[in-house]
Amino acid sequence: MTGRLDEESYARAALTYLAEPGDLQLGALVRGHGAARMLAAIKAGTVPDFLDSGAARAAAQRAMRCWQVRLTELPSADDIAGLCRAGIRLVCPGDPEWPARLDDLGGAMPYALWLRGTADLRFSCIRSVAIVGARAATAYGSYVASEFAAWVAERGWAVVSGGAYGVDAAAHRGALAADGVTVAVLACGVDVPYPAGHADLLDAIAAQGVVVSEWPPGRNATRLRFLVRNRTIAALAAGTLVVEAASRSGALNSARHARDLGRPLMAVPGPITSELSAGCHTVIREWQGMLVTSAADVIEYLSPLGSAAGDPGASPATGPGAGPGTGAAALLGRDALDLEAAAVLDALPSRGGMGSLKIASRAGLDPGTVLRCLGALAAVGFAERCDQGWRLRRS
Amino acid sequence: MTGRLDEESYARAALTYLAEPGDLQLGALVRGHGAARMLAAIKAGTVPDFLDSGAARAAAQRAMRCWQVRLTELPSADDIAGLCRAGIRLVCPGDPEWPARLDDLGGAMPYALWLRGTADLRFSCIRSVAIVGARAATAYGSYVASEFAAWVAERGWAVVSGGAYGVDAAAHRGALAADGVTVAVLACGVDVPYPAGHADLLDAIAAQGVVVSEWPPGRNATRLRFLVRNRTIAALAAGTLVVEAASRSGALNSARHARDLGRPLMAVPGPITSELSAGCHTVIREWQGMLVTSAADVIEYLSPLGSAAGDPGASPATGPGAGPGTGAAALLGRDALDLEAAAVLDALPSRGGMGSLKIASRAGLDPGTVLRCLGALAAVGFAERCDQGWRLRRS
Repeated sequence: MTGRLDEESYARAALTYLAEPGDLQLGALVRGHGAARMLAAIKAGTVPDFLDSGAARAAAQRAMRCWQVRLTELPSADDIAGLCRAGIRLVCPGDPEWPARLDDLGGAMPYALWLRGTADLRFSCIRSVAIVGARAATAYGSYVASEFAAWVAERGWAVVSGGAYGVDAAAHRGALAADGVTVAVLACGVDVPYPAGHADLLDAIAAQGVVVSEWPPGRNATRLRFLVRNRTIAALAAGTLVVEAASRSGALNSARHARDLGRPLMAVPGPITSELSAGCHTVIREWQGMLVTSAADVIEYLSPLGSAAGDPGASPATGPGAGPGTGAAALLGRDALDLEAAAVLDALPSRGGMGSLKIASRAGLDPGTVLRCLGALAAVGFAERCDQGWRLRRS
Repeated sequence: MTGRLDEESYARAALTYLAEPGDLQLGALVRGHGAARMLAAIKAGTVPDFLDSGAARAAAQRAMRCWQVRLTELPSADDIAGLCRAGIRLVCPGDPEWPARLDDLGGAMPYALWLRGTADLRFSCIRSVAIVGARAATAYGSYVASEFAAWVAERGWAVVSGGAYGVDAAAHRGALAADGVTVAVLACGVDVPYPAGHADLLDAIAAQGVVVSEWPPGRNATRLRFLVRNRTIAALAAGTLVVEAASRSGALNSARHARDLGRPLMAVPGPITSELSAGCHTVIREWQGMLVTSAADVIEYLSPLGSAAGDPGASPATGPGAGPGTGAAALLGRDALDLEAAAVLDALPSRGGMGSLKIASRAGLDPGTVLRCLGALAAVGFAERCDQGWRLRRS
């Protein structure tokens, strides 16, 4: 987005404040009726007139209460213009910088993206590979991630990752060291230095690449947001490479999204004696991920037949075609909790206590839903009442 | 072979002295016309009358000159009987101990096998896995080979390998440490301690398993013989597992034979930074080898659906869900056992114990045959010795 915000873009920006991304119901309504009409309906507190089916109206009625919880936090168009003057930009579907690949996410597509950095996101993603893996990477994983990232970056491929410790950081740093472009997709606002130890790294990525988020500036990361964010990493890149991952890890979650999107999926094998290679072996054996042993393998696998870029400085080319998206629902299925309960769990403080209205605001849910979820979470031992309200139950 | 050599067996023994194994032309002639007729023709120095096509006669004429070169080395029937008294036995196609799987080699089938050891080769191979890999194995490769070998051996699977340094030795030792059966297939005579540092290991294998060769006693190993030998390793075992192998290594040669024979092929992944894992990655990626990360994976892959033995000590006869005395036929099928072994198995008590003469009476077989069968049934986990004699092995 450049210049003044049009009504639809402002509405999309507003939705990133009001709703959590990956909400398939809101996603479908926005696709069907536009963000501006949805924002107006949420503000008015009425079920939109354009919903004429009884079932759709009833569902929207329930969801509307969640989206309304954060209306007080809504910035004005001037507030957003102020953010943009501070080096943050908003990119919406249809904007020149909007990465076309995100459309594959269907109803789980981000409402908008907040960007901080010098690189053009759409252009960077055309030839890009997501390099993901464990936070607690071994020396082997860090070495492979940074070597592969440097190799592909030297050849004009952007490295997409999540800005976390371990494999993510090694991948970003490898690309930066090769003077390449790297894209950090965060689970918090692009102005939030998280993890704190990566404040300098994120600034360096912004200086040479771009930092991206679906959440508005200032918003904090939560456990659930990392999972929701992972679908965007997988969708932005031409393919996803898992460098090290334990079984049932967040990196495997990114890999599953790549697979579900029909995107090329790759993994680096490692010693069977290393728990951090177990997830990679699962990707290869059970998810038909490509076993790669060099960065050249990665580029070859992602390049259309006969166009593998083997030389440094090769020019961009379009990646292989993508399949249909399946959305965010799949990633949440790995937890026994439903989306709402998971959001409430994320909003709970681990110390002290918090009232249910505050929790509702943090979770982006209506108070009635929050109370229902709190009861359920308490019943299964995740949450407990205390003098100040509710908190995570300690082990 | 037991007792006196018949003419055909003597001829096959003689051919192991005269010709190199894997000679497809001689193999085809022996299959078509019998070893005795071919030996007579070689001795006479005339192209056999039964070859009536001009091309076949011309080719045989040329080959005949090679086979005649070693005629002076030919042992007499008495010489061979002397070897057998010294603990070496000859096994020919059609003998009870001949492993049926070798027939899959067609014209490249060994003329005969020389054996030294206590285990019955045919029975040992029914449930067996070849574990092969680099001589210059890393600590990782040696560890994986010995752990996997011990695990499968504990569950009644024989470990087939080549008796070499590195992965081979670790595999043999793992099986021996687990009191299991292991089969060393050599590229020299079974009485030749090669490599010299493995003299004790080969003796230990003979004491608890069996040492096998296609070459006659006294014959030395050559570079070519190792390659020729590899097809026999692949053919003897139900499947082949590559633990560590450089690109273009001898271990990959064994793997290629397994693939060409249509046998299950597996490989253990390792760090991409290790050249000794490169061959394993090739097996997985380019030869459709199964990526295995545990010994349980190996057994599962090699077991008929639903019959994988997962518990230590579980024998085919007494595995999960199989009652004593009924299990062997149900799990392996009577086809896997010959009639005599099946009769002995049926005669075994499930409790207490029974002397071999009593078993012979129940089975209606001569005592010598019963002792051979008992040894074989013990080797594959169907039977065990006890104070009172023999009984079905319990889980």
